[in-house]
Amino acid sequence: MTHAVPVTRGPDGETAPAARVAYFVSDSTGITAETLGSALLANFPGITFRRVTIPFVDTVAGAADVVRDIRAGVDDGVEPIVFTTIKSPQIMRQIEASGASVIDLLSGHLRDLESALDSTASEQLGQYHGVGDIEKYFARMRAVEYAIEHDDAQSVRALDLADVILIAPSRCGKTPTTMYLALHYGLLVANYPLTDEDFPSDGLPRAVARYAGRCFGLTTTPLRLSQVRHERRPDSTYSSLAQCTLELRRAEDLYRRNRVPFLNSSTKSVEEMSAVIMQSMRLRS
Amino acid sequence: MTHAVPVTRGPDGETAPAARVAYFVSDSTGITAETLGSALLANFPGITFRRVTIPFVDTVAGAADVVRDIRAGVDDGVEPIVFTTIKSPQIMRQIEASGASVIDLLSGHLRDLESALDSTASEQLGQYHGVGDIEKYFARMRAVEYAIEHDDAQSVRALDLADVILIAPSRCGKTPTTMYLALHYGLLVANYPLTDEDFPSDGLPRAVARYAGRCFGLTTTPLRLSQVRHERRPDSTYSSLAQCTLELRRAEDLYRRNRVPFLNSSTKSVEEMSAVIMQSMRLRS
Repeated sequence: MTHAVPVTRGPDGETAPAARVAYFVSDSTGITAETLGSALLANFPGITFRRVTIPFVDTVAGAADVVRDIRAGVDDGVEPIVFTTIKSPQIMRQIEASGASVIDLLSGHLRDLESALDSTASEQLGQYHGVGDIEKYFARMRAVEYAIEHDDAQSVRALDLADVILIAPSRCGKTPTTMYLALHYGLLVANYPLTDEDFPSDGLPRAVARYAGRCFGLTTTPLRLSQVRHERRPDSTYSSLAQCTLELRRAEDLYRRNRVPFLNSSTKSVEEMSAVIMQSMRLRS
Repeated sequence: MTHAVPVTRGPDGETAPAARVAYFVSDSTGITAETLGSALLANFPGITFRRVTIPFVDTVAGAADVVRDIRAGVDDGVEPIVFTTIKSPQIMRQIEASGASVIDLLSGHLRDLESALDSTASEQLGQYHGVGDIEKYFARMRAVEYAIEHDDAQSVRALDLADVILIAPSRCGKTPTTMYLALHYGLLVANYPLTDEDFPSDGLPRAVARYAGRCFGLTTTPLRLSQVRHERRPDSTYSSLAQCTLELRRAEDLYRRNRVPFLNSSTKSVEEMSAVIMQSMRLRS
């Protein structure tokens, strides 16, 4: 049997094969399904996927709507892929009857885990992305507020509380990395921009020098930095390749002289940088 | 065969069974292994786990260190659980030989996906948490900076650009939710605190009234709000149950009168709130 591959027509009238649809279907936020499903799809770089997340599918009626959508795709001839973390066997049966390729991300592992732990899984929905305890919530909220207050050296008031201080020239990725570490790990992260004024001396900038052991540096490639700075101030000295090259060379010298660990952000996502920083600064609890 | 269960001694000399160790072992950031592994463990609320994430295990030598740690746990008599997303068959064999219960989170699904897609998985490491394209990075960075600038009504400069404006009394969870939506979805999110001054009128506060269609409200329970406010200003009017009750009643009235969708943050995590808001405001791309 051959499938007719449907085509979509672009604005100029050219045709292209329709992207394969990947559904992430969950009885909760959909974060687990999205995370693992996307990690799996990353192994097929040659195929274009359109991703649709459908959270909070926790009733038979809700599932019926989802199944209708999926079935429309099946009828169009390009079988959707459905990643699910649904726990209810009844809802799972509905989704499996849709005719799509259904990949159940939980139940096989859950059975393996039951046997490893010699224990039966709870009938409740898994509440991993649930509210958790109030202390953890406080820690997270405090960390995000600390990060906002200490972003871009706005405040050096409570640097002594910082778990880590990110230092780098402007636009090397300090702010998003700071926020990721705060939001996900409840860490107190300050960040401090290295400017031309910081380079006459060989030491770390005054404001952070006494916390040298908590400093972590970021660098990038001159080309990437220039690209990112153009986005903010096009065709300025600030974004010129010469200025970017100079600032990065000075920053890396500074890190080396002061034994500040550092990484190159040009080839890393915010998640990867956060993982490297936690590892290097021994911040994993 | 019975296992001797090792005990740990608490500060007061009482003994308790040692927590079961759950390892999340990855050749990349460990985020996928942590996310799915934790979702699975949440189904066993009666068992206490100590969680250890080991990222960047991508060489045989690196794996040997990990295996040594795991094996020490096996020898102590409480078999660790190892969740892994390692792709290399050679490293997987090393880990499987440690004697722990190993739950391979990827390879079974990858084989199912190969057959569903009629395609072979790439030999490369899956780069889901890799750097991605620069446009996506810009969007994320812009969103985090926008969130910092528009936190707590600090700036109402570019509210017309906001994808969503979170409104709520102080301490209902606006800031962490704003940051989560910005960091994970690149959405432009402003937040605006409702204060006593906002309640003489029936309408939305002046600054946000013209963007009513983009407003989303948060509420919580008076008890929870009082608890959270005590954390900031203990034993103040601000944190009193009476004041919290009043502010929340007024806020909910305001949401209802102005048809602003809202949710109760007291029973929801930041992840869940973000998922509900995206769903309700139709912000999923």
